[in-house]
Amino acid sequence: MIAPLDFYFDFSSPYGYLASLEIDELAARHGRAARWRPILLGVVFKTTGQSPLLDQPLRGPYARRDLARTARELGVPFRLPDIFPINAMAASRAYYWFDSQDPAKARAFAQGVFAAIFVEGRDLGPPANVIALARDAGLAGPEIADALNDTAVKDRLRAEVDAAMARGVFGSPVIMVDDEPFWGFDHLPQVERWLTRGGW
Amino acid sequence: MIAPLDFYFDFSSPYGYLASLEIDELAARHGRAARWRPILLGVVFKTTGQSPLLDQPLRGPYARRDLARTARELGVPFRLPDIFPINAMAASRAYYWFDSQDPAKARAFAQGVFAAIFVEGRDLGPPANVIALARDAGLAGPEIADALNDTAVKDRLRAEVDAAMARGVFGSPVIMVDDEPFWGFDHLPQVERWLTRGGW
Repeated sequence: MIAPLDFYFDFSSPYGYLASLEIDELAARHGRAARWRPILLGVVFKTTGQSPLLDQPLRGPYARRDLARTARELGVPFRLPDIFPINAMAASRAYYWFDSQDPAKARAFAQGVFAAIFVEGRDLGPPANVIALARDAGLAGPEIADALNDTAVKDRLRAEVDAAMARGVFGSPVIMVDDEPFWGFDHLPQVERWLTRGGW
Repeated sequence: MIAPLDFYFDFSSPYGYLASLEIDELAARHGRAARWRPILLGVVFKTTGQSPLLDQPLRGPYARRDLARTARELGVPFRLPDIFPINAMAASRAYYWFDSQDPAKARAFAQGVFAAIFVEGRDLGPPANVIALARDAGLAGPEIADALNDTAVKDRLRAEVDAAMARGVFGSPVIMVDDEPFWGFDHLPQVERWLTRGGW
Protein backbone atom coordinates (compact mmCIF):
# COMPACT_ATOMS: atom_id res chain seq x y z
CA MET A 1 0.00 0.00 0.00
CA ILE A 2 1.41 3.37 -1.00
CA ALA A 3 1.51 5.99 1.76
CA PRO A 4 -1.61 8.15 1.97
CA LEU A 5 -1.63 11.81 1.03
CA ASP A 6 -2.08 14.21 3.91
CA PHE A 7 -4.91 16.65 3.38
CA TYR A 8 -4.50 19.59 5.77
CA PHE A 9 -7.36 22.04 6.13
CA ASP A 10 -9.18 24.32 8.52
CA PHE A 11 -12.90 23.58 8.86
CA SER A 12 -13.49 27.31 8.46
CA SER A 13 -11.63 27.46 5.13
CA PRO A 14 -13.88 27.70 2.06
CA TYR A 15 -11.06 26.57 -0.22
CA GLY A 16 -10.57 23.65 2.17
CA TYR A 17 -14.22 22.78 1.67
CA LEU A 18 -13.85 22.85 -2.11
CA ALA A 19 -10.78 20.61 -1.91
CA SER A 20 -12.61 18.19 0.41
CA LEU A 21 -15.05 17.46 -2.40
CA GLU A 22 -12.28 16.25 -4.70
CA ILE A 23 -9.33 15.00 -2.67
CA ASP A 24 -10.47 11.42 -2.02
CA GLU A 25 -11.17 10.68 -5.68
CA LEU A 26 -7.97 12.37 -6.74
CA ALA A 27 -5.94 10.22 -4.34
CA ALA A 28 -7.83 7.07 -5.32
CA ARG A 29 -7.00 7.59 -8.99
CA HIS A 30 -3.37 7.05 -7.96
CA GLY A 31 -3.93 4.13 -5.62
CA ARG A 32 -3.69 6.28 -2.54
CA ALA A 33 -5.89 7.27 0.35
CA ALA A 34 -6.18 10.82 1.67
CA ARG A 35 -5.68 11.31 5.38
CA TRP A 36 -7.79 14.27 6.49
CA ARG A 37 -6.02 16.42 9.05
CA PRO A 38 -7.87 19.47 10.34
CA ILE A 39 -5.69 22.24 11.74
CA LEU A 40 -6.36 25.67 13.22
CA LEU A 41 -5.24 28.48 10.94
CA GLY A 42 -5.62 30.98 13.77
CA VAL A 43 -2.70 29.29 15.52
CA VAL A 44 -0.66 29.16 12.32
CA PHE A 45 -1.34 32.83 11.54
CA LYS A 46 0.26 33.80 14.86
CA THR A 47 3.50 32.50 13.36
CA THR A 48 3.09 33.80 9.83
CA GLY A 49 1.53 37.15 10.70
CA GLN A 50 -1.29 36.55 8.24
CA SER A 51 -4.83 37.70 8.84
CA PRO A 52 -7.96 35.85 7.72
CA LEU A 53 -8.26 36.09 3.96
CA LEU A 54 -11.78 37.41 3.77
CA ASP A 55 -11.04 40.24 6.20
CA GLN A 56 -8.28 41.70 4.04
CA PRO A 57 -8.82 44.84 1.92
CA LEU A 58 -9.03 44.05 -1.80
CA ARG A 59 -8.11 40.38 -1.26
CA GLY A 60 -11.28 39.70 0.75
CA PRO A 61 -13.73 40.95 -1.88
CA TYR A 62 -11.76 39.12 -4.54
CA ALA A 63 -11.88 35.85 -2.60
CA ARG A 64 -15.66 36.09 -2.22
CA ARG A 65 -15.98 36.52 -5.95
CA ASP A 66 -13.50 33.77 -6.75
CA LEU A 67 -15.20 31.30 -4.41
CA ALA A 68 -18.65 31.88 -5.90
CA ARG A 69 -17.24 31.70 -9.42
CA THR A 70 -15.27 28.53 -8.74
CA ALA A 71 -18.23 26.80 -7.08
CA ARG A 72 -20.41 27.70 -10.09
CA GLU A 73 -17.81 26.24 -12.42
CA LEU A 74 -17.60 23.03 -10.39
CA GLY A 75 -21.37 22.84 -10.03
CA VAL A 76 -21.17 22.39 -6.27
CA PRO A 77 -23.30 24.09 -3.63
CA PHE A 78 -21.56 26.89 -1.79
CA ARG A 79 -22.38 29.77 0.48
CA LEU A 80 -20.47 31.81 3.00
CA PRO A 81 -22.20 31.70 6.37
CA ASP A 82 -23.27 34.99 7.95
CA ILE A 83 -21.01 34.22 10.90
CA PHE A 84 -17.57 33.83 9.41
CA PRO A 85 -14.86 32.84 9.98
CA ILE A 86 -15.90 30.35 12.62
CA ASN A 87 -13.69 29.04 15.40
CA ALA A 88 -13.00 25.48 14.32
CA MET A 89 -11.58 24.28 17.63
CA ALA A 90 -14.56 22.23 18.80
CA ALA A 91 -15.12 20.67 15.37
CA SER A 92 -11.42 19.81 15.09
CA ARG A 93 -11.30 18.25 18.53
CA ALA A 94 -14.38 16.19 17.71
CA TYR A 95 -12.74 15.08 14.48
CA TYR A 96 -9.66 13.69 16.20
CA TRP A 97 -11.78 12.08 18.90
CA PHE A 98 -13.70 10.24 16.18
CA ASP A 99 -10.47 9.51 14.36
CA SER A 100 -9.00 7.76 17.41
CA GLN A 101 -11.99 5.39 17.41
CA ASP A 102 -12.97 4.99 13.78
CA PRO A 103 -11.45 6.94 10.88
CA ALA A 104 -14.52 6.28 8.70
CA LYS A 105 -16.71 7.96 11.27
CA ALA A 106 -14.29 10.87 11.46
CA ARG A 107 -14.50 11.29 7.68
CA ALA A 108 -18.30 11.26 7.73
CA PHE A 109 -18.28 13.79 10.53
CA ALA A 110 -15.86 16.09 8.68
CA GLN A 111 -17.98 16.00 5.55
CA GLY A 112 -21.00 16.84 7.69
CA VAL A 113 -19.20 19.80 9.22
CA PHE A 114 -18.17 21.21 5.86
CA ALA A 115 -21.71 20.80 4.49
CA ALA A 116 -23.23 22.42 7.58
CA ILE A 117 -20.96 25.44 7.21
CA PHE A 118 -20.64 25.93 3.47
CA VAL A 119 -23.93 24.55 2.18
CA GLU A 120 -26.34 25.33 5.02
CA GLY A 121 -24.46 28.34 6.39
CA ARG A 122 -24.61 27.14 10.00
CA ASP A 123 -22.31 28.39 12.75
CA LEU A 124 -20.24 25.40 13.81
CA GLY A 125 -18.13 27.42 16.22
CA PRO A 126 -20.01 26.83 19.49
CA PRO A 127 -19.32 23.36 20.94
CA ALA A 128 -23.06 22.85 21.48
CA ASN A 129 -23.61 23.12 17.73
CA VAL A 130 -20.84 20.64 17.00
CA ILE A 131 -22.31 18.22 19.51
CA ALA A 132 -25.78 18.60 18.02
CA LEU A 133 -24.45 17.95 14.52
CA ALA A 134 -22.67 14.77 15.59
CA ARG A 135 -25.62 13.49 17.58
CA ASP A 136 -28.23 14.34 14.94
CA ALA A 137 -26.16 12.41 12.41
CA GLY A 138 -26.12 9.40 14.72
CA LEU A 139 -22.34 9.49 14.96
CA ALA A 140 -22.08 10.01 18.73
CA GLY A 141 -24.03 9.83 21.95
CA PRO A 142 -23.92 12.22 24.90
CA GLU A 143 -20.33 11.23 25.69
CA ILE A 144 -19.11 13.58 22.96
CA ALA A 145 -19.70 16.55 25.25
CA ASP A 146 -17.09 15.31 27.70
CA ALA A 147 -14.77 14.25 24.90
CA LEU A 148 -14.45 17.83 23.64
CA ASN A 149 -12.88 18.76 26.97
CA ASP A 150 -10.79 15.64 27.35
CA THR A 151 -7.10 16.37 27.86
CA ALA A 152 -6.00 13.65 25.47
CA VAL A 153 -8.24 15.07 22.74
CA LYS A 154 -7.00 18.61 23.31
CA ASP A 155 -3.41 17.38 23.23
CA ARG A 156 -3.99 15.48 20.02
CA LEU A 157 -5.26 18.57 18.22
CA ARG A 158 -2.41 20.70 19.54
CA ALA A 159 0.12 18.07 18.46
CA GLU A 160 -1.44 17.86 14.99
CA VAL A 161 -1.23 21.63 14.51
CA ASP A 162 2.37 21.71 15.73
CA ALA A 163 3.35 18.80 13.50
CA ALA A 164 1.69 20.42 10.51
CA MET A 165 3.61 23.66 11.04
CA ALA A 166 6.82 21.70 11.48
CA ARG A 167 6.15 20.27 8.00
CA GLY A 168 5.67 23.77 6.62
CA VAL A 169 1.88 23.85 6.48
CA PHE A 170 0.73 27.49 6.58
CA GLY A 171 -2.64 27.58 4.82
CA SER A 172 -5.70 25.63 3.83
CA PRO A 173 -5.80 23.41 1.95
CA VAL A 174 -2.30 21.97 1.86
CA ILE A 175 -1.84 18.59 0.22
CA MET A 176 1.31 16.80 1.31
CA VAL A 177 2.41 14.13 -1.17
CA ASP A 178 5.03 12.22 0.77
CA ASP A 179 7.06 15.28 1.78
CA GLU A 180 6.09 17.53 -1.11
CA PRO A 181 3.66 20.30 -0.12
CA PHE A 182 1.08 21.81 -2.45
CA TRP A 183 -0.87 24.80 -1.20
CA GLY A 184 -4.25 25.90 -2.41
CA PHE A 185 -7.29 24.51 -4.14
CA ASP A 186 -5.86 25.74 -7.44
CA HIS A 187 -2.91 23.41 -7.02
CA LEU A 188 -4.98 20.21 -7.21
CA PRO A 189 -4.29 19.80 -10.94
CA GLN A 190 -0.56 20.06 -10.23
CA VAL A 191 -0.93 17.46 -7.45
CA GLU A 192 -2.58 15.19 -10.00
CA ARG A 193 0.26 15.68 -12.48
CA TRP A 194 2.85 15.13 -9.75
CA LEU A 195 1.21 11.82 -8.82
CA THR A 196 0.92 10.80 -12.46
CA ARG A 197 4.56 11.47 -13.21
CA GLY A 198 5.94 10.56 -9.79
CA GLY A 199 7.41 14.03 -9.43
CA TRP A 200 9.75 15.84 -11.78
CA MET B 1 -11.75 43.59 -32.33
CA ILE B 2 -12.54 42.15 -28.93
CA ALA B 3 -11.22 44.15 -25.98
CA PRO B 4 -7.76 43.11 -24.82
CA LEU B 5 -7.15 41.35 -21.52
CA ASP B 6 -5.33 43.39 -18.93
CA PHE B 7 -2.27 41.65 -17.54
CA TYR B 8 -1.26 43.32 -14.27
CA PHE B 9 2.07 42.41 -12.73
CA ASP B 10 5.00 43.70 -10.73
CA PHE B 11 8.37 43.30 -12.45
CA SER B 12 9.67 41.89 -9.18
CA SER B 13 7.02 39.17 -9.02
CA PRO B 14 8.25 35.69 -9.96
CA TYR B 15 4.71 34.46 -10.56
CA GLY B 16 4.25 37.51 -12.78
CA TYR B 17 7.30 36.39 -14.75
CA LEU B 18 5.87 32.90 -15.20
CA ALA B 19 2.56 34.35 -16.37
CA SER B 20 4.35 36.67 -18.81
CA LEU B 21 5.62 33.61 -20.67
CA GLU B 22 2.09 32.39 -21.38
CA ILE B 23 -0.34 35.29 -21.38
CA ASP B 24 0.05 36.47 -24.98
CA GLU B 25 -0.53 33.04 -26.46
CA LEU B 26 -3.42 32.40 -24.10
CA ALA B 27 -5.10 35.64 -25.15
CA ALA B 28 -4.38 35.02 -28.84
CA ARG B 29 -6.11 31.62 -28.68
CA HIS B 30 -9.28 33.57 -27.97
CA GLY B 31 -8.78 36.33 -30.52
CA ARG B 32 -7.59 38.80 -27.93
CA ALA B 33 -4.47 40.77 -27.16
CA ALA B 34 -2.98 41.10 -23.69
CA ARG B 35 -2.26 44.62 -22.49
CA TRP B 36 0.73 44.47 -20.13
CA ARG B 37 0.36 46.79 -17.18
CA PRO B 38 3.16 46.84 -14.62
CA ILE B 39 2.20 48.03 -11.15
CA LEU B 40 4.07 48.48 -7.87
CA LEU B 41 3.02 45.92 -5.26
CA GLY B 42 4.80 47.92 -2.56
CA VAL B 43 2.21 50.64 -3.01
CA VAL B 44 -0.65 48.15 -3.06
CA PHE B 45 0.62 46.39 0.07
CA LYS B 46 0.33 49.65 1.99
CA THR B 47 -3.41 49.32 1.49
CA THR B 48 -3.75 45.59 2.00
CA GLY B 49 -1.27 45.24 4.85
CA GLN B 50 0.47 42.40 3.02
CA SER B 51 4.21 41.86 3.19
CA PRO B 52 6.35 40.51 0.35
CA LEU B 53 5.58 36.82 -0.12
CA LEU B 54 9.11 35.51 0.07
CA ASP B 55 9.79 37.30 3.35
CA GLN B 56 6.97 35.57 5.19
CA PRO B 57 7.59 32.71 7.63
CA LEU B 58 6.50 29.32 6.24
CA ARG B 59 4.95 30.92 3.12
CA GLY B 60 8.30 32.24 1.89
CA PRO B 61 10.10 28.88 1.90
CA TYR B 62 7.06 27.26 0.33
CA ALA B 63 6.96 29.84 -2.47
CA ARG B 64 10.63 29.26 -3.26
CA ARG B 65 9.95 25.54 -3.58
CA ASP B 66 6.76 26.03 -5.56
CA LEU B 67 8.43 28.42 -8.01
CA ALA B 68 11.33 26.07 -8.70
CA ARG B 69 8.97 23.11 -9.05
CA THR B 70 6.58 24.97 -11.35
CA ALA B 71 9.40 26.24 -13.57
CA ARG B 72 10.76 22.68 -13.83
CA GLU B 73 7.33 21.43 -14.85
CA LEU B 74 6.97 24.16 -17.48
CA GLY B 75 10.51 23.65 -18.72
CA VAL B 76 11.31 27.34 -18.46
CA PRO B 77 14.47 28.92 -17.03
CA PHE B 78 14.05 30.40 -13.59
CA ARG B 79 16.16 31.69 -10.74
CA LEU B 80 15.62 34.03 -7.86
CA PRO B 81 18.18 36.84 -7.92
CA ASP B 82 20.39 37.29 -4.87
CA ILE B 83 19.00 40.80 -4.44
CA PHE B 84 15.28 40.27 -4.06
CA PRO B 85 12.71 41.70 -4.11
CA ILE B 86 13.86 44.53 -6.33
CA ASN B 87 12.29 47.98 -6.49
CA ALA B 88 10.50 47.97 -9.81
CA MET B 89 9.85 51.70 -10.00
CA ALA B 90 12.48 52.58 -12.61
CA ALA B 91 11.63 49.59 -14.79
CA SER B 92 7.91 50.40 -14.57
CA ARG B 93 8.44 54.05 -15.46
CA ALA B 94 10.58 53.01 -18.41
CA TYR B 95 7.85 50.62 -19.52
CA TYR B 96 5.18 53.31 -19.65
CA TRP B 97 7.56 55.70 -21.36
CA PHE B 98 8.11 53.12 -24.09
CA ASP B 99 4.40 52.36 -24.14
CA SER B 100 3.51 55.99 -24.87
CA GLN B 101 5.74 55.84 -27.96
CA ASP B 102 5.48 52.29 -29.23
CA PRO B 103 3.69 49.45 -27.42
CA ALA B 104 5.73 46.82 -29.27
CA LYS B 105 8.92 48.33 -27.92
CA ALA B 106 7.40 48.39 -24.44
CA ARG B 107 6.60 44.69 -24.72
CA ALA B 108 10.12 43.84 -25.84
CA PHE B 109 11.53 45.91 -22.99
CA ALA B 110 9.28 44.18 -20.43
CA GLN B 111 10.31 40.74 -21.62
CA GLY B 112 13.93 41.85 -21.36
CA VAL B 113 13.42 43.05 -17.80
CA PHE B 114 11.82 39.77 -16.72
CA ALA B 115 14.59 37.74 -18.34
CA ALA B 116 17.29 39.90 -16.78
CA ILE B 117 15.79 39.39 -13.32
CA PHE B 118 14.52 35.81 -13.36
CA VAL B 119 16.86 34.15 -15.84
CA GLU B 120 20.11 36.07 -15.33
CA GLY B 121 19.48 37.10 -11.73
CA ARG B 122 20.38 40.74 -12.31
CA ASP B 123 19.35 43.59 -10.03
CA LEU B 124 17.05 45.79 -12.07
CA GLY B 125 16.27 48.07 -9.16
CA PRO B 126 18.82 50.86 -9.76
CA PRO B 127 17.79 53.20 -12.60
CA ALA B 128 21.29 52.94 -14.07
CA ASN B 129 20.77 49.20 -14.58
CA VAL B 130 17.41 49.76 -16.23
CA ILE B 131 18.93 52.35 -18.54
CA ALA B 132 21.80 50.03 -19.43
CA LEU B 133 19.39 47.20 -20.23
CA ALA B 134 17.31 49.37 -22.54
CA ARG B 135 20.34 50.86 -24.28
CA ASP B 136 22.17 47.55 -24.66
CA ALA B 137 19.06 46.10 -26.28
CA GLY B 138 18.99 49.00 -28.74
CA LEU B 139 15.58 50.10 -27.52
CA ALA B 140 16.57 53.57 -26.35
CA GLY B 141 19.27 56.18 -26.56
CA PRO B 142 20.60 58.44 -23.82
CA GLU B 143 17.26 60.27 -23.57
CA ILE B 144 15.89 57.44 -21.45
CA ALA B 145 17.82 58.77 -18.44
CA ASP B 146 15.81 61.98 -18.44
CA ALA B 147 12.60 60.14 -19.21
CA LEU B 148 12.78 58.21 -15.95
CA ASN B 149 12.51 61.49 -14.08
CA ASP B 150 9.96 63.08 -16.35
CA THR B 151 6.86 64.26 -14.52
CA ALA B 152 4.49 62.90 -17.13
CA VAL B 153 6.11 59.46 -16.90
CA LYS B 154 5.96 59.47 -13.10
CA ASP B 155 2.32 60.54 -13.22
CA ARG B 156 1.45 57.84 -15.70
CA LEU B 157 2.83 55.11 -13.44
CA ARG B 158 1.10 56.54 -10.40
CA ALA B 159 -2.18 56.73 -12.31
CA GLU B 160 -1.80 53.14 -13.51
CA VAL B 161 -1.26 51.86 -9.98
CA ASP B 162 -4.21 53.83 -8.65
CA ALA B 163 -6.45 52.66 -11.47
CA ALA B 164 -5.41 49.05 -10.92
CA MET B 165 -6.27 49.25 -7.23
CA ALA B 166 -9.59 50.89 -8.06
CA ARG B 167 -10.34 47.79 -10.16
CA GLY B 168 -9.45 45.54 -7.23
CA VAL B 169 -5.96 44.49 -8.27
CA PHE B 170 -4.01 43.46 -5.17
CA GLY B 171 -1.38 40.99 -6.33
CA SER B 172 0.70 39.78 -9.25
CA PRO B 173 -0.27 38.51 -11.67
CA VAL B 174 -3.89 39.59 -12.01
CA ILE B 175 -5.58 38.95 -15.34
CA MET B 176 -8.62 41.14 -15.93
CA VAL B 177 -10.98 39.70 -18.52
CA ASP B 178 -13.30 42.60 -19.25
CA ASP B 179 -14.16 43.31 -15.61
CA GLU B 180 -13.58 39.82 -14.24
CA PRO B 181 -10.37 39.54 -12.18
CA PHE B 182 -8.31 36.36 -11.87
CA TRP B 183 -5.44 36.39 -9.43
CA GLY B 184 -2.41 34.16 -9.56
CA PHE B 185 -0.42 32.16 -12.05
CA ASP B 186 -2.41 29.08 -11.01
CA HIS B 187 -5.57 30.74 -12.27
CA LEU B 188 -4.46 30.83 -15.91
CA PRO B 189 -6.29 27.57 -16.71
CA GLN B 190 -9.47 29.06 -15.26
CA VAL B 191 -8.95 32.20 -17.36
CA GLU B 192 -8.69 29.94 -20.39
CA ARG B 193 -11.94 28.15 -19.50
CA TRP B 194 -13.67 31.48 -18.84
CA LEU B 195 -12.65 32.74 -22.28
CA THR B 196 -13.68 29.48 -23.93
CA ARG B 197 -17.12 29.48 -22.36
CA GLY B 198 -17.61 33.25 -22.28
CA GLY B 199 -18.03 33.11 -18.52
CA TRP B 200 -20.46 31.04 -16.46
